[in-house]
Amino acid sequence: MTGKYLEDFAAGQIYRSGRLRVDEERIKTFAAEFDPQPFHLDGDAARGSIFGGLAASGWHTAAMTMRLLVQSEFKPAGGIIGAGFDEFRWPLPVRPDDELYLDIEVLEVRPSKSRPNQGLIKVRTTTRNQKGEAVQVSVGNLVVPRRPA
Amino acid sequence: MTGKYLEDFAAGQIYRSGRLRVDEERIKTFAAEFDPQPFHLDGDAARGSIFGGLAASGWHTAAMTMRLLVQSEFKPAGGIIGAGFDEFRWPLPVRPDDELYLDIEVLEVRPSKSRPNQGLIKVRTTTRNQKGEAVQVSVGNLVVPRRPA
Repeated sequence: MTGKYLEDFAAGQIYRSGRLRVDEERIKTFAAEFDPQPFHLDGDAARGSIFGGLAASGWHTAAMTMRLLVQSEFKPAGGIIGAGFDEFRWPLPVRPDDELYLDIEVLEVRPSKSRPNQGLIKVRTTTRNQKGEAVQVSVGNLVVPRRPA
Repeated sequence: MTGKYLEDFAAGQIYRSGRLRVDEERIKTFAAEFDPQPFHLDGDAARGSIFGGLAASGWHTAAMTMRLLVQSEFKPAGGIIGAGFDEFRWPLPVRPDDELYLDIEVLEVRPSKSRPNQGLIKVRTTTRNQKGEAVQVSVGNLVVPRRPA
């Protein structure tokens, strides 16, 4: 697998992704398997809920975000391997036919003290809909290898 | 939808879930749709990776955790609605045929200052495998309605 090493990343870098259209049927089948709550399964039930209409499971949004991230130009060598998150939230619901894309910003780059061949980068990933509204915001720490000597 | 109101929750309460067996084929098909990286798609490719063998996408683990949570005895009235996380990490990989279950602990219960009909509860959800090892730890804040007067 080719890709970027720790030395190729720097705070302030911005990467963008392609777009992904949210399919209403997939909202419902994802929810049926993983998050079977009425506001993710059925438009009528959702209208009377806190969401006011059918909304994707947050975990479906997270999974679609990962798809966009893997296919974006943000390509750490060794893959996208998350060590954990400092922040993770869903400010707005995702609706059928939304078109999602990502803003990916490198916040910090740190060599590891204990492992000389790798480091961590801190990345803010903002998932936006076609109106530019943030529907998911995460700040995560990713493991990235250093460039071989 | 019936369930527990804010007044029914208290710090220190513990809920458990059922179990869910991790299917190897589902690891691969989930990854093909949402996280197409070699260590989630193919056992041979995974052996040479940081995971040392096929591992579920973290988002698949998160989605399976949600399934267990929705089906557990932890049942807030109005559903499980996450406002965001204070902590979210995957300490160990999830493997084919692992059996996952949850420890769900209520850490804090707070009425909302601005919305008199609801509140927030802070919940630590630990996803464990059949050896009892933590494979996902999250501390999330959930919106819960107050009991109607």
